Amino acid sequence: MDKQAHDVECNGLIKIIKDNYKMMSKGQKLLAKYTLDNYSKVAFMTASKLGETVGVSESTVVRFANALGYSGYPKFQDALQELIKTKLTTVERVEMSNNDYSTDSLILEKVLKDDIDNIKETLDYLSEDTYEQAVNAIFSARKVYIMGLRSSIYVAKYLGYYLSYILDDVKIIRMDMGEPVEQMIKIGEGDVFISISFPRYSKKTLQVVNFARGRGAKVIAITDSHNAPISKVSDVVVTVKNNMISFIDSLVPAFSVANALVIGVAMREKDDIKSYFNELENIWKEFEIFE
Amino acid sequence: MDKQAHDVECNGLIKIIKDNYKMMSKGQKLLAKYTLDNYSKVAFMTASKLGETVGVSESTVVRFANALGYSGYPKFQDALQELIKTKLTTVERVEMSNNDYSTDSLILEKVLKDDIDNIKETLDYLSEDTYEQAVNAIFSARKVYIMGLRSSIYVAKYLGYYLSYILDDVKIIRMDMGEPVEQMIKIGEGDVFISISFPRYSKKTLQVVNFARGRGAKVIAITDSHNAPISKVSDVVVTVKNNMISFIDSLVPAFSVANALVIGVAMREKDDIKSYFNELENIWKEFEIFE
Amino acid sequence: MDKQAHDVECNGLIKIIKDNYKMMSKGQKLLAKYTLDNYSKVAFMTASKLGETVGVSESTVVRFANALGYSGYPKFQDALQELIKTKLTTVERVEMSNNDYSTDSLILEKVLKDDIDNIKETLDYLSEDTYEQAVNAIFSARKVYIMGLRSSIYVAKYLGYYLSYILDDVKIIRMDMGEPVEQMIKIGEGDVFISISFPRYSKKTLQVVNFARGRGAKVIAITDSHNAPISKVSDVVVTVKNNMISFIDSLVPAFSVANALVIGVAMREKDDIKSYFNELENIWKEFEIFE
Amino acid sequence: MDKQAHDVECNGLIKIIKDNYKMMSKGQKLLAKYTLDNYSKVAFMTASKLGETVGVSESTVVRFANALGYSGYPKFQDALQELIKTKLTTVERVEMSNNDYSTDSLILEKVLKDDIDNIKETLDYLSEDTYEQAVNAIFSARKVYIMGLRSSIYVAKYLGYYLSYILDDVKIIRMDMGEPVEQMIKIGEGDVFISISFPRYSKKTLQVVNFARGRGAKVIAITDSHNAPISKVSDVVVTVKNNMISFIDSLVPAFSVANALVIGVAMREKDDIKSYFNELENIWKEFEIFE
Repeated sequence: MDKQAHDVECNGLIKIIKDNYKMMSKGQKLLAKYTLDNYSKVAFMTASKLGETVGVSESTVVRFANALGYSGYPKFQDALQELIKTKLTTVERVEMSNNDYSTDSLILEKVLKDDIDNIKETLDYLSEDTYEQAVNAIFSARKVYIMGLRSSIYVAKYLGYYLSYILDDVKIIRMDMGEPVEQMIKIGEGDVFISISFPRYSKKTLQVVNFARGRGAKVIAITDSHNAPISKVSDVVVTVKNNMISFIDSLVPAFSVANALVIGVAMREKDDIKSYFNELENIWKEFEIFE
Repeated sequence: MDKQAHDVECNGLIKIIKDNYKMMSKGQKLLAKYTLDNYSKVAFMTASKLGETVGVSESTVVRFANALGYSGYPKFQDALQELIKTKLTTVERVEMSNNDYSTDSLILEKVLKDDIDNIKETLDYLSEDTYEQAVNAIFSARKVYIMGLRSSIYVAKYLGYYLSYILDDVKIIRMDMGEPVEQMIKIGEGDVFISISFPRYSKKTLQVVNFARGRGAKVIAITDSHNAPISKVSDVVVTVKNNMISFIDSLVPAFSVANALVIGVAMREKDDIKSYFNELENIWKEFEIFE
Repeated sequence: MDKQAHDVECNGLIKIIKDNYKMMSKGQKLLAKYTLDNYSKVAFMTASKLGETVGVSESTVVRFANALGYSGYPKFQDALQELIKTKLTTVERVEMSNNDYSTDSLILEKVLKDDIDNIKETLDYLSEDTYEQAVNAIFSARKVYIMGLRSSIYVAKYLGYYLSYILDDVKIIRMDMGEPVEQMIKIGEGDVFISISFPRYSKKTLQVVNFARGRGAKVIAITDSHNAPISKVSDVVVTVKNNMISFIDSLVPAFSVANALVIGVAMREKDDIKSYFNELENIWKEFEIFE
Repeated sequence: MDKQAHDVECNGLIKIIKDNYKMMSKGQKLLAKYTLDNYSKVAFMTASKLGETVGVSESTVVRFANALGYSGYPKFQDALQELIKTKLTTVERVEMSNNDYSTDSLILEKVLKDDIDNIKETLDYLSEDTYEQAVNAIFSARKVYIMGLRSSIYVAKYLGYYLSYILDDVKIIRMDMGEPVEQMIKIGEGDVFISISFPRYSKKTLQVVNFARGRGAKVIAITDSHNAPISKVSDVVVTVKNNMISFIDSLVPAFSVANALVIGVAMREKDDIKSYFNELENIWKEFEIFE
């Protein structure tokens, strides 16, 4: 077994494969071996391509996934992708995406369809209860703090931009105003801290969330899984499918969830925001901002 | 005919209704009248609700849409929505969205599904040629300028963030560095100016695009339609379905298209970016940035 | 009289020169003529250089300034500089500064000494009453808004950064969050709006100040003169010597006044800020921010 | 000897006091003892106040400073202030400043005069050679990177704003674009990295400077002393008097030095910038930016 397979050992999937190895059919054994040695490739191969490569039928591939306890090949592949997400380097991710992205028309189609699929999956997995808790917490917060590091900063700013239309006190943590915690000296009970965090998880995010929580603020995590570092220390975990597109972590589903949070809060104070927008319309007219 | 209907006259739809009026059935005539007087309501009513309100069957409503030349009721509604987009005030938009957003679970579902539909529609309407032209222009630009005003700034920054990984010279126009044109003194032939602009269109955007064009830069418009003010003066018009969600203009489809543009450019210099990410990985390790 | 002198007519100085012309000595008349035709040069010539150019003694130059009602040549020169400040183009300013800045050591010395002189002059002209009114207004404000456009944005951010240590609710107007007025929808009585504005005055600044004032906010102008556009519509006018250094408008005196405002407010809640800094020290230690 | 005095041991001053102790007069011995036990107070007492406290004449205090090798009491006090600067907490600094800042008029005067004194001192200590080296390096750089963390970010942005008028390729490191080093992947020989760093020194600054240097870039430090952490690893050390005003680290002298650097570079390409400003003037006129 090569170095790669060794790395995988810590993950559940590899154990499952090994535990089931003896009882596998000959074709399944071939698939098991190939997967252990090439898991990062298999994570992105179609069932038929994998079958072809190993020399078995597509239905053997599907049964292999079932035998490992997955309801289908896509779920098996999800597990593999989950596995590599935090382990794969950007370089490997770029290499891996070569086949999918061989022509411009394929790229355009694949990227947009992946984003669609991931919003769908986000909708499937995000419970109404969780969503409602998040909206309620934001709506009744004294002050809302929003933080996102690296590319997540754009989700934080977008969410903050629209929440500011509705709520009186929204503060986006800005990295150029000193350390995040310095901007949160006055955070405490009654406040809400929204942390947006996707793989690869920045170390700093967990520190800051712990600080907010220690001060008594309610923490809403917008992250990819209940296993994310900040999930364990958050009051509400809004899961959003993280979309790995070559070296980009597409935040499209996160922006869509931000939209839903804003509308949810807005619908709770419809009358206020109508009068607010009335004023805004007057301003726009007076200052001739639009065409 | 009231004031509202009068306003609509300039739009193609109203003319179509009038031209076809004489040949309509009695039920269709009722629908025509009601639509002319209440177009901004009809734009957001289901076919059955509209039928109920006017006192005709749902199938009459559908035939009415067909009679006007639309392949179905949704297309007819699209035309109405297009019409009101630039005319409706935010206040009207908030009022209008009341029914769709009556419970939290409806909001969550509707917002995410609308985003999905709009990415789909974006994919349907955006031609591969246009996409390819945009990618080629960005790839071969001497310098890439990116501008978005108001909420579009987040698309501009997101796109700029990822393009900076790949290209040497990407400049995001920052409103806190003076007027946009002041930051573009050196723009000229060989450069690309990407302008992201959705309704309601800021007046300033068109000014700046004209400036860039006057200097000989190639202009890529990321906007909602070929009729947008900047479309006429742009070299490449990347159309993105603009998603009106109550008072939010969802930029989710625009972020997805940004992803596609970045990957498209990246695939053109795969080897370079691999060596680039190799370095980046080393830096991340050395500075212990990730968990 | 040439075009330049004609332009000057609107200014008080030129009228003074003309009114006094008849009663002037022959040498003074030469100076008057030369000044009218070359005012933008004279504004930056030493008394001895001017004398030499015109062919009169340095003391004649000084008496000429006295005859026009100035206590000395520097005051006369100030008036000239004031005159050209809003009229001179950046190009003329660059040309004009050639002599002063002929060697590196001259530049270093002149720039720093000019900054020193201008802080001094700021201190001479800024009354304690005005300063105290400004500090009191900031200290007792419900919310403090701070706006600076173009290079003044850095003074706004610097002032806002330090005031945020002391006050609960400080909002810096950020150009990338939409139009300034949109960020001020909730401004009203009890709030303070600080506007930082130096020549050449942006048109937008006056609009926004009028808006703040119309809403009942107290306006503090940090500007170069009681004749600045915003001075007439401000409650407190904190004058700061504007320092023209070639094409730079040195904001050094403005930063110094910002320091004084911050300390003035801080001294009013010494106990609060001590406990605040106690917390901050703990945070700095815990997060190992400093060497 | 108490804990405080013990802490001081590492500093040169305390050694000097001890070495000279035996040869001191009785009055000087009293001063020595008092200073060792209360150095952070003495650093901010006038000579006469210190004399009064200890029970000696003011001239004895002055001779005491001379005996320790300082040319006057102010220089002795500078050494004490230097000592405490990195050791004093913000809380102590706020407490310490109480006396100086007892009335508004005292604050205004003291803050501005301190800023003046510190620009003066900056001018005294900064050699023309150093200044010239810095200007030359910036002028001939392929690309100029500028970084300042915490309040120094405003100096970085101010310097970058004006250098962008003159130079083609100026990049301000922005904390919201990811880690500084990630924004410097392409830095190398021919580039200049300007690091602005004052006490208390951020740990991150040294890391980043080392990275820039390791890549072959020329490093210009704008900092308070040749003993600052980054000074040892910089090619040019531009010293700027750091002005401690209660809890503020006044950056006024740093802004003044930024002015001098900009003008120095501008004077090296006077013709280019004239044509540049010509264009800018046209733009300003066309877009009606100024009053």
